[in-house]
Parts: sequence; C-alpha cells; structure tokens
Amino acid sequence: MDNQQLIQEKVAQATAILHEFDVDVWLTFVRETTLSPDPTLELIAGVDVTWQSAFVLSKDGRHTAIVGRYDTENVAQLGVYTHIIGYDEGIAQPLRETLNRLNPATIAINYSANDVAADGLSHGLYLALLHHLAGTPFVDRLISAERLVAALRGRKSQAEIERVRQAVATTLNLFDAVEAFARPGMTQRQIAAFVHQRIDEMGLGYAWPRPFNPIVTCGPESAVGHAAPGDVVLQKGHLLHLDLGVRQNDYCSDLQRMWYVLDEGETAAPPEVQRAFAVVYGAVKAGEAALKPGIPGWQVDEAARDFIVDNGYPEYKHAFGHLLGRVAHDGATVLAPRWERYAGICELPVEVGNIFTLELHVIVPHRGIMSLEEDVLVTNTGVEYLGRPQTTLRYIQPDSG
Amino acid sequence: MDNQQLIQEKVAQATAILHEFDVDVWLTFVRETTLSPDPTLELIAGVDVTWQSAFVLSKDGRHTAIVGRYDTENVAQLGVYTHIIGYDEGIAQPLRETLNRLNPATIAINYSANDVAADGLSHGLYLALLHHLAGTPFVDRLISAERLVAALRGRKSQAEIERVRQAVATTLNLFDAVEAFARPGMTQRQIAAFVHQRIDEMGLGYAWPRPFNPIVTCGPESAVGHAAPGDVVLQKGHLLHLDLGVRQNDYCSDLQRMWYVLDEGETAAPPEVQRAFAVVYGAVKAGEAALKPGIPGWQVDEAARDFIVDNGYPEYKHAFGHLLGRVAHDGATVLAPRWERYAGICELPVEVGNIFTLELHVIVPHRGIMSLEEDVLVTNTGVEYLGRPQTTLRYIQPDSG
Repeated sequence: MDNQQLIQEKVAQATAILHEFDVDVWLTFVRETTLSPDPTLELIAGVDVTWQSAFVLSKDGRHTAIVGRYDTENVAQLGVYTHIIGYDEGIAQPLRETLNRLNPATIAINYSANDVAADGLSHGLYLALLHHLAGTPFVDRLISAERLVAALRGRKSQAEIERVRQAVATTLNLFDAVEAFARPGMTQRQIAAFVHQRIDEMGLGYAWPRPFNPIVTCGPESAVGHAAPGDVVLQKGHLLHLDLGVRQNDYCSDLQRMWYVLDEGETAAPPEVQRAFAVVYGAVKAGEAALKPGIPGWQVDEAARDFIVDNGYPEYKHAFGHLLGRVAHDGATVLAPRWERYAGICELPVEVGNIFTLELHVIVPHRGIMSLEEDVLVTNTGVEYLGRPQTTLRYIQPDSG
Repeated sequence: MDNQQLIQEKVAQATAILHEFDVDVWLTFVRETTLSPDPTLELIAGVDVTWQSAFVLSKDGRHTAIVGRYDTENVAQLGVYTHIIGYDEGIAQPLRETLNRLNPATIAINYSANDVAADGLSHGLYLALLHHLAGTPFVDRLISAERLVAALRGRKSQAEIERVRQAVATTLNLFDAVEAFARPGMTQRQIAAFVHQRIDEMGLGYAWPRPFNPIVTCGPESAVGHAAPGDVVLQKGHLLHLDLGVRQNDYCSDLQRMWYVLDEGETAAPPEVQRAFAVVYGAVKAGEAALKPGIPGWQVDEAARDFIVDNGYPEYKHAFGHLLGRVAHDGATVLAPRWERYAGICELPVEVGNIFTLELHVIVPHRGIMSLEEDVLVTNTGVEYLGRPQTTLRYIQPDSG
C-alpha cells in the first residue's frame, strides 16, 4: 500500500471516528509544518504546507483543505479533499466561509494538556484562530480533539501494523548482527557505529535521533537513560544492552535486547544475572497477561511493576509501555503509573489495534542494566508479538570473533 | 566550531538579549521534542527531551534545566546550565521551586500569533503550564518571548553565518553540476534525481523536504509552487528553473537559478525571455538597495514589487524574502507586503546579522517561470551576498551532453 492509499485509509477512519464521537468537524490548523509540525497532519494529509492552512474533516464526508495557493497541487494529489481552496492574502475569509457552509455544532482542534500527539496546535496559532473566528459563533464551538486523535493514531490499520512488523523484523536482524559482531574490548561507540552503518546502508531512518539510537549500555559504568554511546568498554562478566528503533516506510520499531559476556571459564551467567533476567522477563509476561482491550493503562503497568517489586527489586522510574507507530512515542495511552507526568493518559483504556512497547529494567550490581522491550499488538483476545520476543538471556563468548 | 560551542555562544547571546529587553526569565517549556519540537530548543540546548522539561534562562546568568531523570546527562554535557534538576514523577514542584528561587518579574514563554519560530509552545502544554503554576504569582507574569526569539534566531553569530555560507557554496556547485548534466528531453524527475544523488552521496540534508527539493520547473507546463518534480520534459526554447536548498552542519541554503534551453540555431534567448530576466534581476537589486538595518520588512518587499509592476509584470503572490538559518523559513521578519498572512512580521525591522533570501518571479508566456533567489547577510552598511549571485541568464545547449 502506498502512502496515498494509507492517507485515504486514515481519512476514512477519521470520518468514522467523527461519527463515533458525534463531532461535526475536525479542524487541523497549521503553518510552516516543516518547522512546526502537527503530528495529526501526517495521518490525514502527509504533506507539508507553508502558510496558515486548515484541513477540515467533516462528519458528512465533505473534507475541505484551505492552503496557500502554492500548496494546492500537492493536496489535490492526495485524493481525499473534496474541496480545495488556495488563497493568496489571508486564510480568515475562506476559513469563515467554509465553517459557515458546514455550520458545525462542534469543532475539534488539536490541543491536549496530556497527550503530546494530540497537541499539534501551537498556542500562538490558537490565538490566531480565535482572531480569525472573532465575531462568529464558532469560537464557542471549539473542543479538544484529543479523543479523536487518540483513536485515529492509536487504532492501527492493517497497513500500519504491517509496516511496524517490518520495522521490528529489521531490528531483530540487526540484533543478530550485533551479536555476531560484539566482543569484549569494544566500546559503546564502536557497537553503535556498526549499527549505524547497517541502518544507513539500508537507507532506513531512526525511530528517535541517531546520536542516541541505539542506546548501548555496557556493564555497570554506563549511564542509564537517554545518553549517547561513549567510550565505556564492553568487558567480560558484564551485561550488554541495546535499545534500538528503526523507521522503515514511516513506521517505527522500539526494542531492547540483553546479552551477557561470559567470563573466562564460564558457561552461563552468574545466578544473580540469570535471576534478574528471569524477573524482568516475568514482569513483561505479567504485563502482557494484563494487556487486554478496555483495561486502563495504569493497571497493565501495575501488573509488571508489582512483579518486580514482589521479587525484591526497586521499581523502574518510567512507564511500562507506550504506543508505537509513526514515532517511537506515539502519543495517547501509556502503560504507566498514576504519577503527575502521566496524568490523563495512564487512565485511557487499551484498544484493539493499539501497538504497545512492553519494557522495564532492573540493575544488577557490578554487571549492568537488565532491560527488555517488546513490541506487541492488542487484539480482540489479547496480545500478538510483532516479532520473536527475547525469552532467554543471550551470550557473547569471551573469545568471540 | 562544534555544536556544543555553538549552543554556548547562543545561550550567551540569549542572556544579553534578556538584558536588552529587560526580561528576567525566558522559559522554554517542552515535552517529547522529537514529536513536538520547539524551534527555540535547538538554539539553547540542541538536545531532545522526553518528559515535560523546562529550560529556564535567567538574566543573571543562572540557567536552570528541569528534565526527566534520564535526560540529565545529555543536558549536563552542554555546559551551559548551572542548575540541572532531574525529576521522576512530575515537573510541577521543581518548576515552582525554581521560579520561587529566581522570583522573576517577567517570564517570557514561546508563543506568537505571527512568528512560527517563536511559537514552539503548544496550546495544551500552555494549559499544562498554567496548571503547574496555579496559585502562584507567576501566572500573571507570563509574556510572549517573540521579541527574544526574533533577536536570538535572527541575529546570526559568525559561526552561524559561516555555516550558511558553506551551504550556499555547496548549492552553487550543485547548480553548476546540473548545468553540465541537463539537456533537452530530460524530465523534471530525472533532474531532481541527479541532484538527490549528489546530496545523498555527500551525506547532506535538505533545507525542506526531499520530495519537493529541488523544485524543478521546465517550461510553461510545470505547476508554479511547491509541487514535486514530475514527468514534464525539458524542451528547447523553454526555461529551466531550480529552487534548491541543502542543510549542511544544521544550517541551510535556499537559492534559485535560471537557464534557457537554446533552440536550434539560437545563440541567445528571445528578447521577451531576456527582458524577463533583466526585470527579475533588477527587482532583486532594487530590493537589495532597500535592505538596510532598521527598515521594516515590507518596505524592502515594496521596492522589489514596485519594480516588477512598474515594468509591466503582475506582482508575485508571495514574500520577497524570508530569514534563513537552521531552516529555510527561519521565522520572524519577512520582506513581505502588508497582507493578512504577514501581519506582525512584515513590520519588523531588518537587523544586522539577519540572513535573508531575496526572491521573486515573473511568468514568460510559452517559455516558463523566471525566478531568482539569492541569500544575503545584512551588515552595518547594507548587504553581503553569501555566494556569487546570478547576474546573467545561463544557457543549456540544444545538443548539450
């Protein structure tokens, strides 16, 4: 399926979502989208625009795009907008005329205090919109589109699922290549450079910025978190951890894998390392078991978090999972505790078609971080892994290579 | 100069700008910046952050970053934040504590109805900020940072100017390569593919999205505007026009060049083509002559626009110029008419250190678009071209190749 078809599929889905939530019009109001992108625009148009532009999806299927005159051709090629208006001097008049024609009782716009993916409208542009609509009844009909965005972005279509599945498959192959490549004595930087070379050769993108992708953690001295790979050397008796996501056909993977570097004479990891793997793996499975349509995200996190704590480890200071799609952190529902920074998004219910990461870690003293991450699809009955999960600790030989 | 030094240079400049405008604190409030970037963040931090984060520049030089715990290391490496606070559960408390410590009378935040580059704060995040500060006196001390952003982004440092100059030099070389490559019978798509291959081989980026960069216009049948190169064939007796911008070391070029494809037996372009070039070139020069520190942008546009109209051509339906820097449309001051969509930014004064494009076009019936664009730096005395301008029409031979 090409990108134009994908846009058509998502716009049809958006129209159905307007019916489902009984909203008359969904207004995506943007400008200079290369500098100031609205995450919703890539779902319903997939083009960049220069001047103030309005993409007006209507419940009745009359979809209008009001764009600068130089952008009309690109929008017309999408084949989803039944009315395309190119303007020269200002958008206020054609925007008011369009809303007069549709006379919506509710106009959803893209802002959300809690969901970054539904918050593409900048504050200044919001003020500009109020200015354009001053004196009309439409000012009082504006509502947040956050429920619409969460549904449209979160419920992946078959085409979207296949694209994520491809990205996951690519990433799993990269992990296999790393396993064949990595050996004690290499630095984080060398391992990251190896992965970069492969990704760049394939012409793929990165699910998050390249300097921090993959994250490579070697042993106990690496910083935990979003740090760039540095000069820490992989050593025998240490853990090697990669957090890697590629962007392939505009959709992302986000996976973590674990290796133990055997020390001389060892044939398996020490018991405390094996136990850490078993607990992290068990926590992923505990979360997976809770992940069903309708459950609020925080309850899924809690299942995994309790497993960790019940097994005597400190709880991880992040979410157990996030949506995955066009970006690694794809907005809306998080599988996260009821902390301030997850307010409003950890209470959202899991839906069929959501693709979540399942991820958590513990620290093994003197060995390093033990952290796993899988990418799964929520189905009617539960969970489908989008690629083979890691079920046992992987090994790097002391004399490998 | 590496990126870290560039950030340090811009933060020092920001501190001076806070003094100049007598603003106590400049708060850049962001989250999930790979999905929802604030253009100011790349100037003052150059890192991406995940959770809600606050970059608090203070007039007194005490600069504070409040970020999720996993992002502290990257921020620390910048060497510009004297206070770095990593949080786990929520930003509200450390943010209030930081503002209590600084007790600013004015807090500039990144919103602007008119300047997209100063409008990085999303509306939902603005509401979240109000929520975090509810009950404090700081809610009433919030002001727009648009003047600060315009100054910081618009007044290029020497290091920034050199980077744009490099990008311009690269682009001019690409135009020379196109001239050697292009011949009648090629499609727009072929010419664009040739340019893409060169840019990709050099590992450079694009000043605006690759599908529309370069814009390749062949003869009278091409769409004028932001359309992707298609199957229109370059023909003898037609004009060839490229609009191309690369991104090199994070800074951009944005240039247009013109060729005429000689017909059999011709040694020069027909008079109406030559006249169109002369008028477009003359209009660029008329605008250049008006471009001096202190003049409002619309007066520069008017000088060029009047020249076109006085010579009997219809006026162009866009701005004569825009700022250029980290992106092709670098925000703030535009050299543009006083139309609704340029309100608030065409009145801004030209400043020393601004880098502007100078661009306009006319249509030559049956021949194509005649459009030039140059990149210039505003100096104390006037204008410096950042690369050799096009002063005469260039030619492609009918049997070239």
